[in-house]
Amino acid sequence: MPLPRPRGTHVSASHTVWDRALDPVAVVRSGDEVEVLTQEASGGQLGPGSTAADIAVLDLRRINPVVGPFFVEGARPGDALVVDVLSVDLDTWGWSALIPGFGLLADEFPEPYLRTSAVDSTPGGGGVQLLPDVVLPLAPMVGTIGVAPPEPGPHSVVPPRRWGGNLDIRDVGPGARVVLPVGVEGGLFSLGDVHAVMGDGEVCGTGVETSALVRVRLTVAPGRAPASPVVVTDLRTLRLETTLATTGVGDDLLECSRDAVRQAVDLLVEERGTSREDAYLLLSLAADLRVSEVVDAPHWVVTCHVPRRLLPGWPHV
Amino acid sequence: MPLPRPRGTHVSASHTVWDRALDPVAVVRSGDEVEVLTQEASGGQLGPGSTAADIAVLDLRRINPVVGPFFVEGARPGDALVVDVLSVDLDTWGWSALIPGFGLLADEFPEPYLRTSAVDSTPGGGGVQLLPDVVLPLAPMVGTIGVAPPEPGPHSVVPPRRWGGNLDIRDVGPGARVVLPVGVEGGLFSLGDVHAVMGDGEVCGTGVETSALVRVRLTVAPGRAPASPVVVTDLRTLRLETTLATTGVGDDLLECSRDAVRQAVDLLVEERGTSREDAYLLLSLAADLRVSEVVDAPHWVVTCHVPRRLLPGWPHV
Repeated sequence: MPLPRPRGTHVSASHTVWDRALDPVAVVRSGDEVEVLTQEASGGQLGPGSTAADIAVLDLRRINPVVGPFFVEGARPGDALVVDVLSVDLDTWGWSALIPGFGLLADEFPEPYLRTSAVDSTPGGGGVQLLPDVVLPLAPMVGTIGVAPPEPGPHSVVPPRRWGGNLDIRDVGPGARVVLPVGVEGGLFSLGDVHAVMGDGEVCGTGVETSALVRVRLTVAPGRAPASPVVVTDLRTLRLETTLATTGVGDDLLECSRDAVRQAVDLLVEERGTSREDAYLLLSLAADLRVSEVVDAPHWVVTCHVPRRLLPGWPHV
Repeated sequence: MPLPRPRGTHVSASHTVWDRALDPVAVVRSGDEVEVLTQEASGGQLGPGSTAADIAVLDLRRINPVVGPFFVEGARPGDALVVDVLSVDLDTWGWSALIPGFGLLADEFPEPYLRTSAVDSTPGGGGVQLLPDVVLPLAPMVGTIGVAPPEPGPHSVVPPRRWGGNLDIRDVGPGARVVLPVGVEGGLFSLGDVHAVMGDGEVCGTGVETSALVRVRLTVAPGRAPASPVVVTDLRTLRLETTLATTGVGDDLLECSRDAVRQAVDLLVEERGTSREDAYLLLSLAADLRVSEVVDAPHWVVTCHVPRRLLPGWPHV
């Protein structure tokens, strides 16, 4: 076993691949709390003063760093690792970007684009001032949370897997619980990629990416490995507002998603005079993709739910 | 022009295909309200005493009847038809079924299955008692709402299209607004297929299917045809409860949806002792499918959000 670290201390050592051969940064017992300092998803390549030019030269091998891995005593394949998210304290700035080659409409948005924002977490504070006329309430969440896959060798940290990882489920905020299957002895748990706010779908490929101090409790549930990660949500992640939902109707859910998002981009551009880039980026943070029906063969419906306050007037009758 | 009927009266004449050649049941003006009596989706083939044997012999040519069409004066291709849903009054019973060949997991549920339920709409009433141990609050919605496609000839009423139809968007309840593109002169608007409650996805293929008295206002917005239907939601359709969300992780959103639903079926069976058929049917009514991320290539995540109260204990740590 590698060197144990004191339990419950801040840990910020990060890695950018999942690999069962990585040395743990700490050994913890079932029921222990751990606190980690995560780095925003560029891994330090961006700062509050960055520009789109910095997006163009991002080193993609360094993106999406996660902190860990933690070796949880007693965790074995077939067990569940239950992760209770206790708190997520955000940094004071974040970034959102269109990264060439990434995102649901990557082919329609080939140019790099960047928005950096102040993040105001003070009680009653301002949230994220994304655009001059758009403030988004904070909804902190952990984008990447998972354990090492049992298959040997390095695995990219970008795609999620049965073992969790970059799930980008916006409900994974304070009060939520994530239940992961354990793939290797000790689990080798890591997390990172915190967002100050993100919409279901994360359609442009980023939320408001920020560094954060995250506190979680790790508990082993022997023999209870789920088939795939399960999230128990918290009332704090509900969105209590009406929406304007665009639709994509067709025989492929991915194309339905694209159609619904494209229509919402167009509406934001027409109604608000927002640029196409800002509209797409805004949807990635504030809009939710839902599968409204997937049974009325041969056509399914995906809805893109945009907060009504962003499109208050349309259709003006 | 065919014969006009008095404005605002009850209309229950139904049809089971979309066709621009159908005679309107009434001519209305922009801004008029109309009230229609819709028939449950079997078109009168099922009743409160029906059994699975009646599902096996359903005449599928008669399913999903809609009431109309209404000719809206002044509505022309390129316009939007704005439909405000004013009220949806439900019948006192409804049905939900597994129909062979229909549904997201049709291959895994080949046998016909039927649940009929009392629907209690009295203020403070019981909602839908679906199973001995499961009561669902009412969330009335209009499953099918649309206008005639411009392409000549009959079009099946089962799949939705750019012109609306069987959209099965659960937000289309009282207080919601649906904005449809007009495809032919007069629009030829119809609606039907009311559900007492349904989940995003409608995974088994039915909600709680019921007859209803539906009141809507029809307004023409000249030149504002959306690319695809748009829904403005109402606070009454928000689900204010925590959920347990299973996940499907992979490179195809349909398979992700199937995986997430299958995992939720298994959890309901294991935790509650619910039959597989009832579990699948229950998810169609009470669970919501969301696209959590569709950008972390090559793997997307669909989440199936089951009300936490249906799975209160899991994972028992």
